[in-house]
Amino acid sequence: MSWLKIIGLGPGADSLRTPEASAALAEATDIIGYGPYVARVPHAPGQRRHETDNRQELERARHALALAAEGARVAVVSSGDAGVFAMASAVFEALEGGPAAWRALDVAVLPGLSAMFAAAARLGAPLGHDFCALSLSDNLKPWPLVEQRLRAAAGAGFVIALYNPISRARPWQLGRAFAMLREMLPGDVPVAFATAVSRPEEAIAIQPLAEADPARADMRTLVMIGTAQSRLVPRGAGQRPWLYAPRSARSP
Amino acid sequence: MSWLKIIGLGPGADSLRTPEASAALAEATDIIGYGPYVARVPHAPGQRRHETDNRQELERARHALALAAEGARVAVVSSGDAGVFAMASAVFEALEGGPAAWRALDVAVLPGLSAMFAAAARLGAPLGHDFCALSLSDNLKPWPLVEQRLRAAAGAGFVIALYNPISRARPWQLGRAFAMLREMLPGDVPVAFATAVSRPEEAIAIQPLAEADPARADMRTLVMIGTAQSRLVPRGAGQRPWLYAPRSARSP
Repeated sequence: MSWLKIIGLGPGADSLRTPEASAALAEATDIIGYGPYVARVPHAPGQRRHETDNRQELERARHALALAAEGARVAVVSSGDAGVFAMASAVFEALEGGPAAWRALDVAVLPGLSAMFAAAARLGAPLGHDFCALSLSDNLKPWPLVEQRLRAAAGAGFVIALYNPISRARPWQLGRAFAMLREMLPGDVPVAFATAVSRPEEAIAIQPLAEADPARADMRTLVMIGTAQSRLVPRGAGQRPWLYAPRSARSP
Repeated sequence: MSWLKIIGLGPGADSLRTPEASAALAEATDIIGYGPYVARVPHAPGQRRHETDNRQELERARHALALAAEGARVAVVSSGDAGVFAMASAVFEALEGGPAAWRALDVAVLPGLSAMFAAAARLGAPLGHDFCALSLSDNLKPWPLVEQRLRAAAGAGFVIALYNPISRARPWQLGRAFAMLREMLPGDVPVAFATAVSRPEEAIAIQPLAEADPARADMRTLVMIGTAQSRLVPRGAGQRPWLYAPRSARSP
């Protein structure tokens, strides 16, 4: 039986990958994805690996569907959850625009742990009340829409998790976002930078919004912006405070 | 060594619980949580189980901290991710308000797969672009704030995942939310009802917003409201269409 499974690998550590995902990866004949994600998949004998560039999502999705149509068991892999700013949407776009026969393929999405939850767990419980997830990339949407969404979210008191905060090609967007948010939120609202959580190079910092420094972020960073109701709980010397959102919310 | 771990069990199926969570559960001396969640934890010899009512979050959190302070290895369990409308915030609230000694405890949060990702995976990729998660319960926030957040999210084009959509004590809120959203969004925006995903009683339905029926939801349901840009991809007879959010977004 051929199939196509779109698999979220989780944030990095093997111990955060679901058993469901691990079982499917072991049975796949073909692993397809962005190189660094494919490299995270344990090797299985005879398995073919197709490592592609980060930008070629739609071509990669069509390739995966074509392989499954030829009889392969294809795993398309993403970091985190494949449905969150990752490959799942690209596969369904390709499927919608492709040959009718593709719609009869055995396609499934296997969920994974998205970066914001791994980051939140390290920090405490910053997402403990209403929150939103927003890609700061303006590659696939106009920048004014990003600003509109940031304003709507901050104005209504959502905690904001920012994916794709910065890259070499998008150096100014995060600073612009912080500047906008400083006009709407108190300067002591906590901003967390969580980089490569659960991987060896993990790094975490919390800064007040007034001083939040975009240079803290890179492509592996999840940036989380709290609200005026976010709480910091000091711990012992040398330990980061816990950051959490109270269960009860007041109007912002 | 005593510790307190706040653990997300995932949406239900064992195959969606992280290996990290399973390992900690096996080593705990005490499991604490809402009865149906504690019942999901595999039995380990000599382990004590403390099943409490759903409403007593803060008391349960204090109990857990007190046990850890006495030397126990305590697992506080939640369904999904413990940081999403679940026990993690309650533990940090209890910790903040409790004895200073509690701040020296070895506390950690182990992330889990939240219901909206399990639901999204079954549906396709409905969260493929910006989205928010909102509890529809007005037990811990004023209802006007819920309405404000729904309006902000829908107005800015976020996909909306509604947690706690309905209960015996909160029968009208979901209908009110649909009525509000009908004034803002086209009637054909897809609304998904995903109940008990990955458990034996799993049930999924998609309806257009114009006809969305609150009676489809119960306490185990995650309700997801798409946007005018959400796509439905028909499949073969007897199969639900795929639902996905395109990677590119236009202004709503």
